[in-house]
Amino acid sequence: MNDTSWDSLVEHVGRIETLRGVMGTLGWDEQTMMPPKAQRLRGAQRALLSRMEHEWITDARIGGWLEALEGDADPVRRACARNLGRTYRRERGVPAELVVALAEAKSEGFAAWIDAKKRSDFARFAPSLSRLVELSRRRADAIDPHRHPYEVLLEEFDPGTSVEGLRAMFARLRDGLTPLLRAIAERPQLPALDATFDPERQTLLHREVAAALGYDLDGGRLDHAEHPFTTGLGEGDVRITTHIRADDLLSGLGATIHEAGHAMYEQGLPHALAGTTVTDAASYGLHESQSRFWENFIGRSRPFCRWLAARLAARFPEVGVDAEQLYQAQNRVERGLVRVEADEVTYNLHVIVRFELELALFDGTLSVADLPEAWNARYVEYLGVRPPNDARGVLQDVHWSGAAFGYFPSYTLGNLYAASLGATLERELPDLWARVEAGDFAHVLAFLRERRNAHGHLEEAPDLVRAAVGERDHVEDLLAYLWSRHGALYGVTRS
Amino acid sequence: MNDTSWDSLVEHVGRIETLRGVMGTLGWDEQTMMPPKAQRLRGAQRALLSRMEHEWITDARIGGWLEALEGDADPVRRACARNLGRTYRRERGVPAELVVALAEAKSEGFAAWIDAKKRSDFARFAPSLSRLVELSRRRADAIDPHRHPYEVLLEEFDPGTSVEGLRAMFARLRDGLTPLLRAIAERPQLPALDATFDPERQTLLHREVAAALGYDLDGGRLDHAEHPFTTGLGEGDVRITTHIRADDLLSGLGATIHEAGHAMYEQGLPHALAGTTVTDAASYGLHESQSRFWENFIGRSRPFCRWLAARLAARFPEVGVDAEQLYQAQNRVERGLVRVEADEVTYNLHVIVRFELELALFDGTLSVADLPEAWNARYVEYLGVRPPNDARGVLQDVHWSGAAFGYFPSYTLGNLYAASLGATLERELPDLWARVEAGDFAHVLAFLRERRNAHGHLEEAPDLVRAAVGERDHVEDLLAYLWSRHGALYGVTRS
Repeated sequence: MNDTSWDSLVEHVGRIETLRGVMGTLGWDEQTMMPPKAQRLRGAQRALLSRMEHEWITDARIGGWLEALEGDADPVRRACARNLGRTYRRERGVPAELVVALAEAKSEGFAAWIDAKKRSDFARFAPSLSRLVELSRRRADAIDPHRHPYEVLLEEFDPGTSVEGLRAMFARLRDGLTPLLRAIAERPQLPALDATFDPERQTLLHREVAAALGYDLDGGRLDHAEHPFTTGLGEGDVRITTHIRADDLLSGLGATIHEAGHAMYEQGLPHALAGTTVTDAASYGLHESQSRFWENFIGRSRPFCRWLAARLAARFPEVGVDAEQLYQAQNRVERGLVRVEADEVTYNLHVIVRFELELALFDGTLSVADLPEAWNARYVEYLGVRPPNDARGVLQDVHWSGAAFGYFPSYTLGNLYAASLGATLERELPDLWARVEAGDFAHVLAFLRERRNAHGHLEEAPDLVRAAVGERDHVEDLLAYLWSRHGALYGVTRS
Repeated sequence: MNDTSWDSLVEHVGRIETLRGVMGTLGWDEQTMMPPKAQRLRGAQRALLSRMEHEWITDARIGGWLEALEGDADPVRRACARNLGRTYRRERGVPAELVVALAEAKSEGFAAWIDAKKRSDFARFAPSLSRLVELSRRRADAIDPHRHPYEVLLEEFDPGTSVEGLRAMFARLRDGLTPLLRAIAERPQLPALDATFDPERQTLLHREVAAALGYDLDGGRLDHAEHPFTTGLGEGDVRITTHIRADDLLSGLGATIHEAGHAMYEQGLPHALAGTTVTDAASYGLHESQSRFWENFIGRSRPFCRWLAARLAARFPEVGVDAEQLYQAQNRVERGLVRVEADEVTYNLHVIVRFELELALFDGTLSVADLPEAWNARYVEYLGVRPPNDARGVLQDVHWSGAAFGYFPSYTLGNLYAASLGATLERELPDLWARVEAGDFAHVLAFLRERRNAHGHLEEAPDLVRAAVGERDHVEDLLAYLWSRHGALYGVTRS
């Protein structure tokens, strides 16, 4: 490809990226600042920008550029050909009427889900869900009729991941987690943190912790939102949100560390390569590996709890909490019903339930009507609890109402990658935990950035992970880590 | 024009309006929320959307629609032809290279102004200002070589206003204000408010007051900004900002009432006519008349001060301030140097100085080099004070650095319109002040909305005002109001 064509491509893709930054700003505003009566106006704004984005991403010139890029040896151009080609084919492959039908079905689906969850009645959501599954299957077939439809959907979140690879990994993980969970359930429970912390000072603490980890607040913000999230809008603008509750310090703090992890990944992307697609995150799973790494591997470690205890003592002298109390409360395991409240041991079982059910829906081996019973049966089998109703069972998550089939696996992929990263970091940085206890996180961030983050989407996520940690068994890394940390706390050992 | 063409026009203009709402959201975010490091990214976003807006507003189809609209008797279509035609001709008339040159000159001009103001050295800003005047003159000539260039620039803010009309009105106003100011200066000064108010409770008070006046906070927000402003983003989303200072209750509260006035005007526009240009504000002067009406005519009245004193007593029981103290402090007149700190009597003299100087710059009777001395001479003549330096003199306002020549008159136009509105309302609603004292502002808002606001830009501002108040002498209305309120407080009578 000659340099003039490449420059045109970079300019065009740069425009799309800039537009996405605008859309992201509107999305952030909608969830944090927008007045309630602006809903309809914001919908019109979103529709306008989405139409433009679709027009630009399906611009016929892209086809010519992609042809010209074939066989190019430059790594950035090669990555661009792969990433842009995928988006281009996915966006152009789906007929316009299907795009419209899906958009309508999502919008109806979301309303139906809200209603069904409020009444805890899956039957009210079932027709919408059936339609969403059907339309998503048709969409997958339109993109690539030769692949498993679920894999085509999965590709949107975690390109480079196969259904068979996931199925095997997740089955091994599930079979490794259930004995750990059973062993822990037989031991005396660890105490939760029973203390109240002034919300205003909590906000200050959150800012202090996020900044200490390495989140650059001059290129970001920390606001409140019911469901915390991170928005990466481009270079110099990566915003996080959290929730603060007086009687639950650790939930909000965990959210802040988690979102700061996402944000540090965004801040570390190779922004100088804007317009080449390489500045994008490599995958949802990789993104999640960063947030989980900080939240769990670092944030729930004993050395971190020691550092945190000192920060707490300085800010909340009226509350007496020591490091060991924090450490136990942070790693308390409970067989719960709700994914977003889950601890590290049970969390992936929640995800695996959803993965298996999604796969069955798209395999055609499970009907939407049978979904609640299949859900409940798996909860009994894997987690030992039976949801008392649909609201706390099959209706708990928003994802399916937006046809985000294939999204859930990225949560567990993130945990798997994070485990191998943790094992590698522990080996390579012998004084890791002494540094963490001293509040020195610079080496941790540098490790993450050098290893994979600064490559953006130059390679696919699984390849980036392999380059970072070598050939490792992620499932084994995660199981070893969980047995080691939680096994020690609960006094159980792996047989 | 047939209905199909009209529908296409409305769809196209609706798209432009929606895009402007997006740009407005980014602008609001930039001034209230955006992290400092996002400056460059936001610049790229703004540039992208501005280019699109320019493309859409100069779309050749508009020319055809305008032809088809000629002679259409429907009032909305007639207004659309006038408003859209003006924008279309203005945007298409200016050659692209001049647009680029002006954008660059503004950006350089802003930096030069910041630097010059910091050093209080006009010479550092003079070259930029010369260029901005020169380019603006060329722009005016490109749009319409047969009219006074200043009138062409003025049209951007206050269409339907002539230079000769303004010159005559402002000269009469100036000649009427100077004797009032001289008389007041010879009298004992009124006391300022010397008390401190807890900032957090001030914020609650601001919300209470804005809501009581009629600002719908479910379709808006109140945030903090160094220089308060209002952003109307469309139906259901009109946001205001204010500043809060512990030792200056009235400055911040005045800002909130002022911005709430702007916001209520935006909220009262005929949103059902979206896509026709009629939902736009009719002019800057008309917009300003609403903010000034609430801020001054209502907000600095004795009955309002009585109502406010009761609200203050409830929220700040530790501060003893009575209604008469508030009333005097609200209407204290001072010969100051700075427009944005000016009281009602001197405010318009600040504006008239700028209007006369702008006009002389575009007449060619004043050179940029002579501007500081001309500025200072007028301050001595009209206000009786001489700026000790450029920072508090000719460099105080940002407007010229952005080539916003012709903007200043709208401030005084707003005061003039507001005075006639006030006189009309007092005549038509005999129990006006009893209602205000009781905190019942519904009739005031209804009066403003019915009279002009709900017409949006159906007619030009001067015609809307005429329809609202009849044939009134705005200068006489404003002078009579100021002599009456301030004359009484200072014990002077009009000779």
